[in-house]
Amino acid sequence: MSSKIRVGIAGYGNLGRGVELSLAQNPDMELVGVFTRRDPASLQLQSAGVPVRALDQIEHYRNDIDVLILCSGSKNDLPEQGPALARWFTTVDSFDTHARVPEYYAAVDAAAQGAGTTALIAVGWDPGLFSLNRLYGECVLPVGQTYTFWGKGLSQGHSDAIRRVAGVAGGVQYTLPVEAAVQRVRNGEQPELSTREKHKRQCFVVLEQGADADAVREAIVTMPDYFADYDTEVNFIDAQTLARDHAAMPHGGFVIRSGQSAAGSQQVVEYGLKLGSNPEFTSSVLVAYARAAYRMNKNGQIGAQTVLDVPPGLLSPKSPAQLRKELL
Amino acid sequence: MSSKIRVGIAGYGNLGRGVELSLAQNPDMELVGVFTRRDPASLQLQSAGVPVRALDQIEHYRNDIDVLILCSGSKNDLPEQGPALARWFTTVDSFDTHARVPEYYAAVDAAAQGAGTTALIAVGWDPGLFSLNRLYGECVLPVGQTYTFWGKGLSQGHSDAIRRVAGVAGGVQYTLPVEAAVQRVRNGEQPELSTREKHKRQCFVVLEQGADADAVREAIVTMPDYFADYDTEVNFIDAQTLARDHAAMPHGGFVIRSGQSAAGSQQVVEYGLKLGSNPEFTSSVLVAYARAAYRMNKNGQIGAQTVLDVPPGLLSPKSPAQLRKELL
Repeated sequence: MSSKIRVGIAGYGNLGRGVELSLAQNPDMELVGVFTRRDPASLQLQSAGVPVRALDQIEHYRNDIDVLILCSGSKNDLPEQGPALARWFTTVDSFDTHARVPEYYAAVDAAAQGAGTTALIAVGWDPGLFSLNRLYGECVLPVGQTYTFWGKGLSQGHSDAIRRVAGVAGGVQYTLPVEAAVQRVRNGEQPELSTREKHKRQCFVVLEQGADADAVREAIVTMPDYFADYDTEVNFIDAQTLARDHAAMPHGGFVIRSGQSAAGSQQVVEYGLKLGSNPEFTSSVLVAYARAAYRMNKNGQIGAQTVLDVPPGLLSPKSPAQLRKELL
Repeated sequence: MSSKIRVGIAGYGNLGRGVELSLAQNPDMELVGVFTRRDPASLQLQSAGVPVRALDQIEHYRNDIDVLILCSGSKNDLPEQGPALARWFTTVDSFDTHARVPEYYAAVDAAAQGAGTTALIAVGWDPGLFSLNRLYGECVLPVGQTYTFWGKGLSQGHSDAIRRVAGVAGGVQYTLPVEAAVQRVRNGEQPELSTREKHKRQCFVVLEQGADADAVREAIVTMPDYFADYDTEVNFIDAQTLARDHAAMPHGGFVIRSGQSAAGSQQVVEYGLKLGSNPEFTSSVLVAYARAAYRMNKNGQIGAQTVLDVPPGLLSPKSPAQLRKELL
């Protein structure tokens, strides 16, 4: 009998594929099944010997899975799947609609409390590791300001918005922190920063044949919500360049807490990520937290939980004694 | 009756004074007493109305204190005081002799388990927040390397070592990370770095009248353990300059985890501190963890604990619902 943590994956897009690969870097865990709404026979996994099954049959595998990692989207899928699957499994998900965390938490908590499962929600880097650093920052420096900068990174939502503009054949959008603003924050100035002062937006666009470049540029930079409040740079490239130079999904950013001690000393704490692949990093975070969710459930800590509730040591395959010896 | 967390301070040096000030930034906590081995009448606190008492009478105040913050030294005092005081109080300390954490943990745990108290040990920034970041780093990027750089910062131990050299009237030592090494790590190169390649040491020395500068410099740069393995710069200054420019106690550093996802993407996580005052920051960290220690004890989590055991949300005066709404 295996003593590994038995992990299931629900949803097999970018994130699900990333979780599958990430599990291979964690020898105390094993992938025991992938569940999909598509035809299971249509999925080609990266791992050998792992069964693919229909998501609507997942209830029958309750005794075969210690923790289920939910890899579907926050917008349409998780609000329904999160509570539904927490009735049968200890789960981890990357729900990332910040404003809806409280209502999602409540729905998942009701399901998990009723079932005696543990549901670790909103895991990833933002929300997730960035949330943790906002917390640690404001707790150790209660008098101060917290700043979050994102980028350089590819924004899926903004790239989609570009592609909906008439005359655009393809394109991507990068969010960049404004370096001057980051420097002011790092220097402990605690500036008030407008949206425009914090981030700028950089677009690489492939035009449809015969499209008017100026009209496309104008449609992009004036688009409300997405671009109008930012300085936006629009670069026109050909389809080949788009495919060659802009296929990766880098991202990153910083959380900076700038504060003063009671005696007046300036103290600055900065947490930063520089990610070659955004979905692969989110996957890695999900897998580490899956280990913690499994252990929290074993310890009787049931119901919905977030990264703020997880004792950090539970993330590691090492024993508490080993962690104290190696990391303290 | 007060609903604030009642905090005591044991030991009133730099750290004790910092904790006293830091408590004023945390309105849910109140300082109810300072305990000292010196003559209590000789201490002048920064706060009005707080009693100073003899440390050897502290046992009588068991019912008046929710959590005791131990502010004495790791080398001579804590190995004895930590276990002794955990028999009567829930405690927090900044024990920082890395190599002795396991034995200190065992001694404090035995005392705290017997008494039903909670003893949160090795709290501060290293060990402490840096330990947390080493943990988060290796858990989310299990394939990779962790690097810790310290500085620019004043090292008390190395400054003391300089002052013991014959011919030295006064002096301070700063530890500096080697910028080129930091850059290589940030770039994801994962280099093997020797001691000399990671840090350099910068000394500011006031000579005694008639002392031989060359002999002093030689004695410093060749000193085993402290300087021989580093590139060390020795600057001679006068006593006035030392007092004017080198009285502050800045410090800081970085923990960087550089790793690869299973698909081969480079991912770099960096945590950095830039501290105007090292003891004031350590004090702030101790106070935040005092809140957590108090709550862990209320929740029945007794015995010795470290930052790796503390659910992050317990550090905050805010409710879990408020934290989820504001930080996720």
